[in-house]
Amino acid sequence: MSLQFQIEATRGAGRAGKLWTPHGAVETPVFMPVGTLASVKGISQDLLEELGVNILLGNTYHLYLRPGVEQVRKLGGLHGFMAWKRAILTDSGGFQVFSLNELRKITEEGVTFRSHLDGSAHFFSPESAMEAQIGLGADIIMAFDECTEYPADATRLRESMELTLRWAERSKRHFEAHKHEVPWKSAPGVEAESTQSLFGIVQGGMDAALRKESAERTIEIGFPGYAIGGLSVGEPRHLTQEIVEATIAHLPADKPRYLMGVGTPEEIATFSRMGIDMMDCVLPTRAARHGLLFTSEGKISIKQARYAGDEGPLDPRCGCKVCRRYSRAYLRHLYAANEVLAQVLNTTHNLYHYLDTMRAVRHSIALG
Amino acid sequence: MSLQFQIEATRGAGRAGKLWTPHGAVETPVFMPVGTLASVKGISQDLLEELGVNILLGNTYHLYLRPGVEQVRKLGGLHGFMAWKRAILTDSGGFQVFSLNELRKITEEGVTFRSHLDGSAHFFSPESAMEAQIGLGADIIMAFDECTEYPADATRLRESMELTLRWAERSKRHFEAHKHEVPWKSAPGVEAESTQSLFGIVQGGMDAALRKESAERTIEIGFPGYAIGGLSVGEPRHLTQEIVEATIAHLPADKPRYLMGVGTPEEIATFSRMGIDMMDCVLPTRAARHGLLFTSEGKISIKQARYAGDEGPLDPRCGCKVCRRYSRAYLRHLYAANEVLAQVLNTTHNLYHYLDTMRAVRHSIALG
Repeated sequence: MSLQFQIEATRGAGRAGKLWTPHGAVETPVFMPVGTLASVKGISQDLLEELGVNILLGNTYHLYLRPGVEQVRKLGGLHGFMAWKRAILTDSGGFQVFSLNELRKITEEGVTFRSHLDGSAHFFSPESAMEAQIGLGADIIMAFDECTEYPADATRLRESMELTLRWAERSKRHFEAHKHEVPWKSAPGVEAESTQSLFGIVQGGMDAALRKESAERTIEIGFPGYAIGGLSVGEPRHLTQEIVEATIAHLPADKPRYLMGVGTPEEIATFSRMGIDMMDCVLPTRAARHGLLFTSEGKISIKQARYAGDEGPLDPRCGCKVCRRYSRAYLRHLYAANEVLAQVLNTTHNLYHYLDTMRAVRHSIALG
Repeated sequence: MSLQFQIEATRGAGRAGKLWTPHGAVETPVFMPVGTLASVKGISQDLLEELGVNILLGNTYHLYLRPGVEQVRKLGGLHGFMAWKRAILTDSGGFQVFSLNELRKITEEGVTFRSHLDGSAHFFSPESAMEAQIGLGADIIMAFDECTEYPADATRLRESMELTLRWAERSKRHFEAHKHEVPWKSAPGVEAESTQSLFGIVQGGMDAALRKESAERTIEIGFPGYAIGGLSVGEPRHLTQEIVEATIAHLPADKPRYLMGVGTPEEIATFSRMGIDMMDCVLPTRAARHGLLFTSEGKISIKQARYAGDEGPLDPRCGCKVCRRYSRAYLRHLYAANEVLAQVLNTTHNLYHYLDTMRAVRHSIALG
C-alpha cells in the first residue's frame, strides 16, 4: 500500500490515528517540521530522528531552484538525497509562487514567475508541479492550487476556487499517469508496489459556503487525503478557526486532513482537537532563529538582558536536551554573541516543544 | 591533585600519556578544539562528548568582552556556564590582543587595547589576565606573554623575550596568591583541594639560542607544564618545525608540552611524533565554515560543482556520522544553499578527522 490511514481513538471531534507511508508510520495528529531546502535549518537528520520526527516537509519551489529536481531525482529523490528514511511531504510550490507577488503572473495554463534568487523566468503548471514532485519523490505530494489572497471579493473567490478545482483535476490526471516514475521505486526497505500519494487542497477563502462547495467538488475528483489551504494568509485568528471548522464538516471522516501552514503551539493543539490530522509551520524553526522560544509558560525572547545571569533551564517542565543541560544565561549569551549554536539549540528546543505538544494531544485523545 | 601527567609509552621522541585534570583525564598527545566564546562553533556539547573531546580551549580575550568574566564566574566558571564537565584550557589573551595590531599599546605594565567589537579601551596585565582566567575557571590556564611578531630583529627578540619572562614571574606570583578563588571550588564531582594549573610559555622567535634561554629561564620560574608560543605567526613551515625541535630539547621530559595554535592534520601528527603532548588550532572549525574538509586523501573544497552529483561519502575511510550518512552531493548542496547544517556537518567531520588522527598517532606510539 502507498498510504493507509486508521483512526484509533476519538475525543469529541479530535482523532488519534496512524498514517502508514512507504517510508514508515506516522502517529496523528502530527506536526511536520519544515525542511525547505532538504534540511530543517541547523538540525541534523540524526537529531530529527532523536526528536521523534517521523515526517517532514520539503518546499518544491525552493528545491526546484536549488539543487534542481533532476539532481535530487538522480540521487534517489529527497529520501536518498538528504539521507532520510522516514516520511516526507512536499507542497506543490503554489503557495511559494503565490508569495512572490510582483514576480508572478497567473493564467489558466499555470503560473509564470521569476526566481527570488536570480530573477530568471520559470513556469509552473499542474503538470509541471506534479513532475517536480514526482522527481523529488516525497511520500505525500500536493495538488497544484491557487492560494487566494486575503481579503478577496466574491467574484475573485469563486474564480480562484474554480481555477484550483480545474488544476486539481489536471494534477490528478498527470499524477496518475506518472506516479510509477517515483525515484525510490526499487530502494531497499520500500515495498515494491508502493508509490506516492497525491492530496487535494480545499480553497474558498473565508466564505464558508464556498469552502463547502470546494470540499465537495475536490472529494468528487477523489484523493486519499485532503488539505485545507488558503489560511494563515493574514486573516484574524478567529476567522481561521471558523473556516477550519466549516471545512472539516464536509471532509470525509476516514481520510487524513491536513491544515497547511498553521500555527502556534496553542493553535496546533486546538486544531487537533477539532479533527485536523496533519499540520506544518515554519514558526518553531523561524522563531528559534530570532531567539523566540516556546515554553510551558508561554513565549520567551531569550535575547533579553534579564536572562544574562539566569541559571535556570529555559523551561523547567521541558524534557528536551537543551532544557536538561543548558541555562538561560548560556542560551542568552549564544544568541547575543551570534553563535551558530544558538540556532541549533533554540531550534532543537522549539521542535521538541511542538512535538511534545502533539504527543500530549494524542495522549489526551487516546484517553477518550 | 590539580594536575598529573604520566607518560605511558614512547616511540622515538614521541610520547603517549595521560593528563589528569580536576575535570577528568585526557589522553595525550591531544588536539584541543577551539571554543572561542564558550562554544565550538555549531557543535553542541553533547556532540563534542560523542566525538570524544575531553578537553577544549576557550579564548580569554573574547570571553572577557562577551559575556564578561564576572558573568561566567557567577555561573560556576566556564564549566558551569557552558555545561561542560570535561577539561578546559584558556589562553591568556596575550595572543589575541597581539593580533589586534593597531588597536593595542604594550608597556612594561601590560597592554592597553581597544575592543574589536565597539572600540572601547581595556587593559590586560599579567595580574589582570590571571584574574580573568581564574574567574573563567579553566583547568589549565596560561601565563600572560608577549607573542613576538615575525620577522623581528635580534634586539626586538631579546627585549620581547625578557618582557615575557618578567610577565611569567608576575603571572605566577598573582596566580599562586589567588588560585584558590577558582569558581568551581565546591562543585560536585570535583576533588575538594584541586584547583587550576598555570602553564608557562616559551618565546624567543625563530632564534634557537633564545628559545633555549627562554625555556631554561621559564623552567627556573617553575610551572607544571610548558607551552611553545610565538609560532604559526607567518614563518615558513620548515622553520616552525626547527624551532619546535630546538625548544623541545630544553623542556623537562616529565611535564606536558603544549604547542600553541598548530596546525594541519599532517602537522599535528608530525609534532606529536616529535614529543608535543597538546595542540590547539582553529583550522578544523574555521576551514569547515569555508567548506574545506580534511579527508584521508587530502583536502576537499566541497563547494566545487563537481561534487553536485557525487553520491559517495565525503571520505570512504572515515567513520564519522557525516561520512556514514550523507553524500558529497548533499554536503555540496547545503554549502551552496548557505544552509546552517553545512557548518554543523562540516565541523563535525573535520573535528572527527583531527581526533581520529590523534587516536592513530597515540596508537602508533603506544605500540612502541
